[in-house]
Amino acid sequence: MSSKNFSLSGMPDLSSLEVKRREYVFSIVKNIFEKYGFFPLETPAIEKRETLMGNYGSEGDKLVYQVLKSGDFFSKQDKKELLKSDYKTISSIISDKALRYDLTIPFARYVSKNQSDITFPFKRYQIQKVWRADRPQKGRLREFTQCDADIIGSDSLWLESDLLKIYDEVFRKLGLKDVVLKLNNRKILEGLYSNLSANFSFSEFCIVLDKIEKKGKDVFLDFLKENDISRENILMFESLLINSISIDNLNPDFSSIVNIKNELIEEGKKEVVDLFSKINRLETLKIEFDFSLARGLDYYTGMIFEIQCNDIDIGSIGGGGRYANLTTLFGNNIGSGVGISFGVERILICLDELNLFPKDLDCSLDLLFVNLGEEEAFLCQDYIDELRVSGIKCELFPDQVKLKKQMSYANKRGVKYTALVGEKELKSKKITLRNMIDGSQESITLKDLINRLKND
Amino acid sequence: MSSKNFSLSGMPDLSSLEVKRREYVFSIVKNIFEKYGFFPLETPAIEKRETLMGNYGSEGDKLVYQVLKSGDFFSKQDKKELLKSDYKTISSIISDKALRYDLTIPFARYVSKNQSDITFPFKRYQIQKVWRADRPQKGRLREFTQCDADIIGSDSLWLESDLLKIYDEVFRKLGLKDVVLKLNNRKILEGLYSNLSANFSFSEFCIVLDKIEKKGKDVFLDFLKENDISRENILMFESLLINSISIDNLNPDFSSIVNIKNELIEEGKKEVVDLFSKINRLETLKIEFDFSLARGLDYYTGMIFEIQCNDIDIGSIGGGGRYANLTTLFGNNIGSGVGISFGVERILICLDELNLFPKDLDCSLDLLFVNLGEEEAFLCQDYIDELRVSGIKCELFPDQVKLKKQMSYANKRGVKYTALVGEKELKSKKITLRNMIDGSQESITLKDLINRLKND
Repeated sequence: MSSKNFSLSGMPDLSSLEVKRREYVFSIVKNIFEKYGFFPLETPAIEKRETLMGNYGSEGDKLVYQVLKSGDFFSKQDKKELLKSDYKTISSIISDKALRYDLTIPFARYVSKNQSDITFPFKRYQIQKVWRADRPQKGRLREFTQCDADIIGSDSLWLESDLLKIYDEVFRKLGLKDVVLKLNNRKILEGLYSNLSANFSFSEFCIVLDKIEKKGKDVFLDFLKENDISRENILMFESLLINSISIDNLNPDFSSIVNIKNELIEEGKKEVVDLFSKINRLETLKIEFDFSLARGLDYYTGMIFEIQCNDIDIGSIGGGGRYANLTTLFGNNIGSGVGISFGVERILICLDELNLFPKDLDCSLDLLFVNLGEEEAFLCQDYIDELRVSGIKCELFPDQVKLKKQMSYANKRGVKYTALVGEKELKSKKITLRNMIDGSQESITLKDLINRLKND
Repeated sequence: MSSKNFSLSGMPDLSSLEVKRREYVFSIVKNIFEKYGFFPLETPAIEKRETLMGNYGSEGDKLVYQVLKSGDFFSKQDKKELLKSDYKTISSIISDKALRYDLTIPFARYVSKNQSDITFPFKRYQIQKVWRADRPQKGRLREFTQCDADIIGSDSLWLESDLLKIYDEVFRKLGLKDVVLKLNNRKILEGLYSNLSANFSFSEFCIVLDKIEKKGKDVFLDFLKENDISRENILMFESLLINSISIDNLNPDFSSIVNIKNELIEEGKKEVVDLFSKINRLETLKIEFDFSLARGLDYYTGMIFEIQCNDIDIGSIGGGGRYANLTTLFGNNIGSGVGISFGVERILICLDELNLFPKDLDCSLDLLFVNLGEEEAFLCQDYIDELRVSGIKCELFPDQVKLKKQMSYANKRGVKYTALVGEKELKSKKITLRNMIDGSQESITLKDLINRLKND
């Protein structure tokens, strides 16, 4: 075997089973998206560099894969000048394209470009691969699939309601039981922040808040203290973080929120109450109002959500929220939108660890015809032609090699039945059928074989 | 509207209809592949640069998209030394990854890497996007989908037979009628070439031969003359190119091939005869033996095929062949393989131009509930919940805007029915259903509505 490793870490090959498992999840998700009026869109893997860079924060930008210009990218450059520049500047000269990093920016680019042809509110779902030059770890790859549904062009909370119902139905169909949707509203956070007269930005405030889940609430409280926030305000936040807001029967009780007179907070609270009144009922999803949920991305402006599966300690398996101005990045303001995302790779891990994939994901042969000689092979081929007409997955072992080798091939491929057509069967026009699981054999006509396998 | 163009040429966005049309073709192809015992494999979009570069010929290599190293790719380089190099050398230093250019090399890389775990003969199909920095034109994009089936590890002609039957069944299912499979054997070509004592390589011979289809046979004959090939040989080729080899009832008549005593030619002819005896019958595909078919790629060593749809002048819509040593590129020799490829983008163009897509590719809503007020909307939402349980694609228009605007939205989205629930319907518990095609209206219960749409 070659000693060289030709594979890249974090960029997995997917076996038949892995492809089938993905297709299983996607078919459930697509079916539900479409019932809710979302239809597919696909954008190219390669976008202009300028479309992507600058939209993911400085840490995100570093993870964008940049594509070299084709041809002589140095020909028109003053090379001496170039030498004085740092690698980032040089990148921007020799690279003009980059790989899809998420599905949201390409969606905003698409909507901006096609706004005169699009009927708003515009709904789409998108299930495609994205690439990030990140450090690979469990549930985090360099190539992975994202799965988003978004609506743009309406600020109605009926949309949030539909998206939460989609989450509920998808996780129910997948068989995941202990799934929690954490929910917050950026307006509440913005109202609380504006009351602080802080020397840090709202964006920083959100980033530190977001750390509470992994590192505990002291990280956040210490940050407030270090930044000279008043004792009164710190006490208020402490109480907020301790007293969870119960949502019995989708009826939130905000009485524990200290009564700050602030329009944004009132608006945020009203949205939460309105949204719950619209949803009326969820079957699988449990909802928690989580004051410490802030979501990393700057563009969220209203309701925000994050999904966790309590059975598996793997972090968030979905998330999303309302954004006001996404398309302004491309020179248009089409209005408010809202979207959700499924963490496909992590959901696949959950389904695997919880044994929730259907047993027979249909990636093995129904039947292998053993090759016992040239004349026999021709007869087998006639049988195979008819079996395939009936939709049965079958093939002839291509070479006349020892029976043992052919049986070993059948076993390794997980074939359910093998068919033997030798001298005897050539005369009798019957087929010897061997059940590869229990080893039993029987003599059977082609017609009976077809019926057997069709009902199997 | 923004004056900036954020899109890249040759890298298309795919609308719902375009996605659905692709899914329609893929589902037919996948279903047939699996009946023939092929199962899916997916490889990552990004491979090591060294895995791809050097395998597609100098012209092909230029079209490979190279990905910049992450981080400071110049840090460890002597910049002055670097600037003396040409851009190709610099590329090889600052780029260590590249984008999938075809599915064959990644397949060979996969098989080499996993050979100790794979059961041979190994069959896989792969339907994935590839990227080429080519000049975009009709049926040729920079991002496009390839669709391949290959078997590696057996030299049995039963495999060629299955692959030709797959072509036959796929094109029949797609409704394409006048489809021709051109066929040749590299061994015949190699035998004829070896007889020439030529001062050019076999590879050059094939490249010039391949030009006949587009530029006429004189290009080839002139090339022979310029390279001092004997008059006798040139006459032989002339006769070969004029007298087509008829294949009545899959029974090839090679008598027009000048009788050169050459083992390779005999072997090639025998393979063609054997293959036809195995196929026995094709329903859609017409077979032509085309002596001028050579296939551009160096790795073919046996039977080669190319598919044309005579109804549309778009060039080849598929091709493939037998190769002996593909995995040696990665330090292994796993043996002979054979594969076919479907030209997905061109097939889509053919189906579109010939009106062969199913009329209802299921990318519109079954039903839109018009939003006539808050109380009405809540009742609509109850109805919608039940309709969705029955698998009906429906939604509530999210905003209370003028009826005209909502109806215009329904029309533009191609919605089949709209449902009106106003004051009257609030009391009667009935729904006013409007057929958006003929404009007819009726009053209907939820139960009747569900039955109507389920049977629609």
